[in-house]
Amino acid sequence: MMKLQILGCHAATPRSNSFATSQILEIGGKMMLIDCAEGTQIQLRRQKVKFSRIKHIFISHLHGDHFFGLIGLLNTFSLHGRKEELHVFGPKGIKEIILLQQKYGKAWTSYPLRFHELDKKTPELIFEDSTLSVETIPLDHRVYTNGFLFREKPKDRTLLVEKAEAYDIDIAYYKSIKKGKDITLSNGKVIPNEELTEPPEDPKSYAFCSDTRYQPEMAKQLKDVHFLYHESTFLEKHSDLCEKTKHSTAKEAAVIAKKSNVKELILGHFSARYKNREKYREEAEMIFADVSLASDRKVFEWK
Amino acid sequence: MMKLQILGCHAATPRSNSFATSQILEIGGKMMLIDCAEGTQIQLRRQKVKFSRIKHIFISHLHGDHFFGLIGLLNTFSLHGRKEELHVFGPKGIKEIILLQQKYGKAWTSYPLRFHELDKKTPELIFEDSTLSVETIPLDHRVYTNGFLFREKPKDRTLLVEKAEAYDIDIAYYKSIKKGKDITLSNGKVIPNEELTEPPEDPKSYAFCSDTRYQPEMAKQLKDVHFLYHESTFLEKHSDLCEKTKHSTAKEAAVIAKKSNVKELILGHFSARYKNREKYREEAEMIFADVSLASDRKVFEWK
Repeated sequence: MMKLQILGCHAATPRSNSFATSQILEIGGKMMLIDCAEGTQIQLRRQKVKFSRIKHIFISHLHGDHFFGLIGLLNTFSLHGRKEELHVFGPKGIKEIILLQQKYGKAWTSYPLRFHELDKKTPELIFEDSTLSVETIPLDHRVYTNGFLFREKPKDRTLLVEKAEAYDIDIAYYKSIKKGKDITLSNGKVIPNEELTEPPEDPKSYAFCSDTRYQPEMAKQLKDVHFLYHESTFLEKHSDLCEKTKHSTAKEAAVIAKKSNVKELILGHFSARYKNREKYREEAEMIFADVSLASDRKVFEWK
Repeated sequence: MMKLQILGCHAATPRSNSFATSQILEIGGKMMLIDCAEGTQIQLRRQKVKFSRIKHIFISHLHGDHFFGLIGLLNTFSLHGRKEELHVFGPKGIKEIILLQQKYGKAWTSYPLRFHELDKKTPELIFEDSTLSVETIPLDHRVYTNGFLFREKPKDRTLLVEKAEAYDIDIAYYKSIKKGKDITLSNGKVIPNEELTEPPEDPKSYAFCSDTRYQPEMAKQLKDVHFLYHESTFLEKHSDLCEKTKHSTAKEAAVIAKKSNVKELILGHFSARYKNREKYREEAEMIFADVSLASDRKVFEWK
């Protein structure tokens, strides 16, 4: 199961009732916070996310609508008396900004805060454990920016316990059976693994790409990724603004989705200039079939 | 007319539906923003405050629940294409924090941004024009902190135009009549000013005191101020926490109000530990009669 909660998906600034970019990705049993605009902690509370479950935060770039909520969230963790280590991945400079504010506020964290500053311009593996990996997706924006690609690792097969018991297989073999091994019984009979297990869920992957100008070369890295969030600040009629501000249109996002052969495209980072967001979907669907629009507090769950 | 809009009045952090300290004081025709916690720009939009009317921002201290919304608001002003000068008054360090974030975001302001950094420990006149003055109120908190005392200047008397016209007084004399002068008609008859004018509204004053431990000596500076906002983070049963965190109880705020002889006390900076806020009022009213509780989006208007 992979679950994505959109905390905010608007460009530039928070509004009366909507928020700038932030997301919670639940993957491999972990809660990964991606970007952290002003008000993210408000949205986390509304979504009833347990703050202590967040141990990794990924910041794409140092524009306000992607990170002005970080200092407040780090501070709130301390006010809650947090003890667990927290890892923050983000562009070089992020540590200096956070520590300067903590210095003037005499408000050091109650927990170990580890910064992982990024400055490479090629994809880089920045996190890996037994359940998932995270790599950067270098983006092209007005300041140094990365997207992030989250990949689940292959899971064990599901053991059919009643079958194993029927063959009187000792529990000591269960771990290797889940890894795919056949079993030779004491009478010499070989039980093929397929009879004792069911295949696991396919490992899922999620790519977060915001903010960036259209970068067709990105499709290679995103090849066969399952779910792609790609910014679509503008519609085609404002493509001149994309050039100037280094953003993408909904159509361009759809071209990336098609070239990458993803299963589903989620559009976000909406400009306030368009009252009707369906226009984004209409433009994208001319290129790619499975398009969703992000909206604040929307939840995507992939079994 | 003096008008106070509470944008947020909670201690420590924003919550699902409430905000930390920020206020808009309308005085002398100006909109003064006092403190700027995370989400202040959201509350300003909800209150329909025209952003361009804010030309002066006063920050009491560099704790997050009083200033983490400042960088976002300054940034939003730029996104709106603001050209008017903006003045920010706050503790030494505030300029470094803001400029560092603007540097990494390559997001300099579209308007002249003037910092007035404070480091004195005695009351200081920090703003004055023809309609009002602002002085600091040195507070005693865990970091360098000031309250702010806003005083309207005496206004002109209100001219009774129909009376002036009945005496055929030339319009050239109106300005001096409003200043209180009597008029000698061409026939030598003296018209006393009281016959031509009504007295002006009394000049009003407002003191903002958050956050601070109980400081009885403050009452001298606040003598006869009309309206006092004083923090009351705790109730008396938690007065030990006041000592530790350098905050005040509702009762202590009321003692200050009584000693200062203010007309009205507004309590705020509420701790999340108390579900029933009326307890704050009950404690304060044992000492001082006219007590109000702040609440988000509450408006006080004083004619």
